Amino acid sequence: MPLGKFIVIEGLEGAGKSSAIASVVAHLHAKGIATQTVREPGGTPLAEAIRALVKQDWEERLTAETELLLMYASRAQLVENVIKPALQKGMWVIADRHDLSSRAYQGGGRQLGDEKLTTLRQLVLGDFVPDLTLLLDVDPKQGLERARERGELDRIEQEDLAFFERTRERYLQIAQDEPNICVVNSNQAMADVHRDLLNQLEQHLFHEYG
Amino acid sequence: MPLGKFIVIEGLEGAGKSSAIASVVAHLHAKGIATQTVREPGGTPLAEAIRALVKQDWEERLTAETELLLMYASRAQLVENVIKPALQKGMWVIADRHDLSSRAYQGGGRQLGDEKLTTLRQLVLGDFVPDLTLLLDVDPKQGLERARERGELDRIEQEDLAFFERTRERYLQIAQDEPNICVVNSNQAMADVHRDLLNQLEQHLFHEYG
Repeated sequence: MPLGKFIVIEGLEGAGKSSAIASVVAHLHAKGIATQTVREPGGTPLAEAIRALVKQDWEERLTAETELLLMYASRAQLVENVIKPALQKGMWVIADRHDLSSRAYQGGGRQLGDEKLTTLRQLVLGDFVPDLTLLLDVDPKQGLERARERGELDRIEQEDLAFFERTRERYLQIAQDEPNICVVNSNQAMADVHRDLLNQLEQHLFHEYG
Repeated sequence: MPLGKFIVIEGLEGAGKSSAIASVVAHLHAKGIATQTVREPGGTPLAEAIRALVKQDWEERLTAETELLLMYASRAQLVENVIKPALQKGMWVIADRHDLSSRAYQGGGRQLGDEKLTTLRQLVLGDFVPDLTLLLDVDPKQGLERARERGELDRIEQEDLAFFERTRERYLQIAQDEPNICVVNSNQAMADVHRDLLNQLEQHLFHEYG
């Protein structure tokens, strides 16, 4: 049984990650590929408990370092207890966010810098990296507008626009340097976004074997 | 107003940390020094919520990396929101465990190694280090016997003897290399332990100015 592939969907609030995941999963199912979807932070009982701590409003200041460490604690549980076992069984894992979110949000948005982030990544995850990351790039104003229409915003989603602009910029910077991160323009109509998304998926994970 | 001093009491379960802290606090109060005591993991509302996650039994495996990251997340909150502000006010802070516990328990007991631990320490705490660490060294068998007499043991306290022997060994190794960590023999009668403890305290934090 060959190992499954690990595909990550990334992007700002309102970038359209949920419908992108549904589209990718349907595309893979049509090929007869078994999938498992996960989301971060969360995905195991302990990781979900950590997610609740991160999303909650606290009276005390939640430091950027604490937020980062909690994200990685949740991630370590998910990778070891869910993602790796699923890949071993030959399933393809589709993740709603992974460590690129930490590099963009905590590294860029909260300005912790990329060096701290890559050091922590190496320490916790070693050489475990996604086969493909699809980054849905959206204008922060447009994304937040969509997210607001969905309902109440959590602690992180309440940050100001400059925070999301720094986050987007870091996302795009990292994508430029890493060939297995593909940017998809998510400011288009949804049908066009999904067409581009599935084209990238085909090109990177199927074309080379086709 | 001069900065306060940061004193850490370390040691295995049943080493006598609680009574040692009471003894140090009484000694400082007799000198007219204002103190604040804290314990790890915990000490702020969020840090206590993290403590509860770490102490709990989970159906899933809690990885050594996750445990370590949760300890540091709790520590980052405590240092920024409680310890540093108290030291700024001139109070002396007496801590029941600090990062030496992670180096001994996760680095030694769980065998993550000291390099990972010192990298994470540097990343989260930078150059913030205790003025003095008093390490109560106890034979693990004797310590666990005392801890058992106190009642139910938590998830970490249920580890086997070999785990605590590795933890003790790492504690002593690190203490050999770092001059601001003092070992106090805690296999003696309590009165003798406290005498040695207060002697070390005097010698390291008062004698040099005396």
